[in-house]
Amino acid sequence: MDVISVIRTKRDRGRLSDEQIDWVVDAYTRGAVADEQMSALAMAIFLNGMDRAEVARWTAAMIDSGERMDFSVLTRPATDKHSTGGIGDKITLPLAPLVAACGAAVPQLSGRGLGHTGGTLDKLESIPGWRADITNAEMMRTLEDVGAVICAPGSGLAPADKKLYALRDVTATVDCIPLIASSIMSKKIAEGTGSLVLDVKVGTGAFMRELDQARELARTMVGLGTDHGLPTVALVTDMNTPLGLTAGNALEVRESVEVLAGGGPADVVELTLALAREMLDAAGLKDADPAKALADGSAMDAWRRMIAAQGGDPDAALPTARETHVVTAASPGVLTRLDALSVGLAAWRLGAGRARKEDPVQAAAGVELHAKPGDPVAAGQPLMTLHTDTPERFAYALEALEGSYDIAPAGTAFSAGPIVLERIS
Amino acid sequence: MDVISVIRTKRDRGRLSDEQIDWVVDAYTRGAVADEQMSALAMAIFLNGMDRAEVARWTAAMIDSGERMDFSVLTRPATDKHSTGGIGDKITLPLAPLVAACGAAVPQLSGRGLGHTGGTLDKLESIPGWRADITNAEMMRTLEDVGAVICAPGSGLAPADKKLYALRDVTATVDCIPLIASSIMSKKIAEGTGSLVLDVKVGTGAFMRELDQARELARTMVGLGTDHGLPTVALVTDMNTPLGLTAGNALEVRESVEVLAGGGPADVVELTLALAREMLDAAGLKDADPAKALADGSAMDAWRRMIAAQGGDPDAALPTARETHVVTAASPGVLTRLDALSVGLAAWRLGAGRARKEDPVQAAAGVELHAKPGDPVAAGQPLMTLHTDTPERFAYALEALEGSYDIAPAGTAFSAGPIVLERIS
Repeated sequence: MDVISVIRTKRDRGRLSDEQIDWVVDAYTRGAVADEQMSALAMAIFLNGMDRAEVARWTAAMIDSGERMDFSVLTRPATDKHSTGGIGDKITLPLAPLVAACGAAVPQLSGRGLGHTGGTLDKLESIPGWRADITNAEMMRTLEDVGAVICAPGSGLAPADKKLYALRDVTATVDCIPLIASSIMSKKIAEGTGSLVLDVKVGTGAFMRELDQARELARTMVGLGTDHGLPTVALVTDMNTPLGLTAGNALEVRESVEVLAGGGPADVVELTLALAREMLDAAGLKDADPAKALADGSAMDAWRRMIAAQGGDPDAALPTARETHVVTAASPGVLTRLDALSVGLAAWRLGAGRARKEDPVQAAAGVELHAKPGDPVAAGQPLMTLHTDTPERFAYALEALEGSYDIAPAGTAFSAGPIVLERIS
Repeated sequence: MDVISVIRTKRDRGRLSDEQIDWVVDAYTRGAVADEQMSALAMAIFLNGMDRAEVARWTAAMIDSGERMDFSVLTRPATDKHSTGGIGDKITLPLAPLVAACGAAVPQLSGRGLGHTGGTLDKLESIPGWRADITNAEMMRTLEDVGAVICAPGSGLAPADKKLYALRDVTATVDCIPLIASSIMSKKIAEGTGSLVLDVKVGTGAFMRELDQARELARTMVGLGTDHGLPTVALVTDMNTPLGLTAGNALEVRESVEVLAGGGPADVVELTLALAREMLDAAGLKDADPAKALADGSAMDAWRRMIAAQGGDPDAALPTARETHVVTAASPGVLTRLDALSVGLAAWRLGAGRARKEDPVQAAAGVELHAKPGDPVAAGQPLMTLHTDTPERFAYALEALEGSYDIAPAGTAFSAGPIVLERIS
């Protein structure tokens, strides 16, 4: 087996054999295949694709590159959720304690943000004292006691994926369905959850801009889960408009706590409940009532215990930004469009995200929305408030927001589309 | 300018702008673009192509990455030849002194072999005392006095190409017309020759297996020469059968000396004269008579002076192999096919070539042919003699030769095709 012949096979539109895939993933993990060789192969895969059997084998090879976890010792059934990422997507924060409050174990291994998509760990780190890195023993104990853990994955899970993801990030080979699907699913399968619910975003603020791409990604991942014995369901959800009214770390924690307190924006509540029902169904807890768990405070109680178990103080005040800038409506009417990508870029430029892995993030930076599509607006009414500790960033953030929304004359008919577009199982 | 957007442009089938090309070639040469990024771009170029203007700019950027030479101070007109490489292709050896004997200066910057294609410098190094590395001053003096130099290029010429070529070699991005053409032409244009004749090989023993590919490569290179003010002509020549009767370092030197002495195989003489006439025409020496220069000994005289100028002893005995093995015809008839690639692989496996850049080569190893297509053969007649210092290699070489020739019943009509298939200018 040699790497040149593996690259040449895919370059010339051939199928990679099981032996070629096993060998190249293992050799890359060991360092016997060089970065420049794997990136040439990744570009050939990007341009020439892989079929379902190739993606399944590629995923299996990445799982086999590391250790596997096992939650079957818990008395609670383990179920997990993964989102492909969107603007204002804080859903993991209320969802994990909500599903825990209903009796499941939610081992949510999460990442930090890169680019304009926020990272769940960055959001939680705005809570004073909270830490992402915990031991496996702490994780198992909290899963049994509280039912939810949100933490950084150990380095032992799918190390091939970790190495390949970093390489794809610098070689323009990220947004490729076979590589995205195998990356996500190798980690989730290695993690050992009992069932998985995928939130595949589609729209301007998502990886996938078109519904047919998102559907293909969802189908590919559901197929991979099924092929590996992991019951998997996907919801394809809208990401043309930011979720909720906040994009930014502490801002999103605040909104999540509002949802757990029985309030919060309707779209965040709707998607949280839809995902919770899927997870509880998949976990075999068909009688659970997540709406009740939000209303009766049991989800909030699970949140407080989950945060405290990782050193966080659920009662501490969240950081606020040193400076704010308000964007107002120039004319009266109805807000008919509010572009997710623009809001995400603005939040990123205000300091909520990072350009390079080693950059810090500002806990309090971000964008707060005062209107969503369908809302009437008056001339001069605040549309959004920008938050940052570094006001020299306002101009750069405002540039990202140019042309990001439309206001139609008052009385224009507008109906927002559904959040959940399709369910794929 | 950032490398991700450059890769993404070509990945998405776009045109690279002049600014993108200049930046990425320069940044790669400086080390600001990493190998894994350039290999992803090379694979995208391999699969999505470059148009004529992109290839021209890419070539110019590689030329600009280093120094340029200038032969206009010589009293002789400088003309050069480049072959894309074939089996038994020793043509440079008789051609350079022949064209020099007719009044031109031939600055032949050559390489060492990698894989089954032999390198001109490896061949000459089988002559006792001869050395490939000479100073620029020595080169200019010999070009003026003798008219021909065959030597290693200085490291200052097109360093971007040197770095990119090594990368392509390990990432399955070698046989791609825009990258081959820009690699060859950047070195030849930077070298500063006054005119250039290309020998583009097509057939089993060549990079290009199909005539239309070879023609496209020839046209691309002639176009690049023209765009850069270098008069360039290409001959597309047959490489389904080895050239001459030898493949191997000292074996090919011996055959070249036979040609310079007025003898040698007909195909080698024919191609040498065809290329010499093109070079002399391009150099403005239209009255020169290369056939006469072979016949009257003036080409041989130039050879002896050229070899001596680089420390070689033209009268020294060439090395011979310790062991030989004869392959004989199983049945009588007419030889109708003798596959170039098989003979090249056999010579390589006998020790004439190297698998890695740092490997040594055997001066005396190779294959000597006793019949060419069209020749009648008797049962038991020697067809080829294998030469090596390491007889354990015979079995491996014989494996490469399995099925490498056809013998048809005696009396079968056979006519060999022409050597020169097309002329492109």
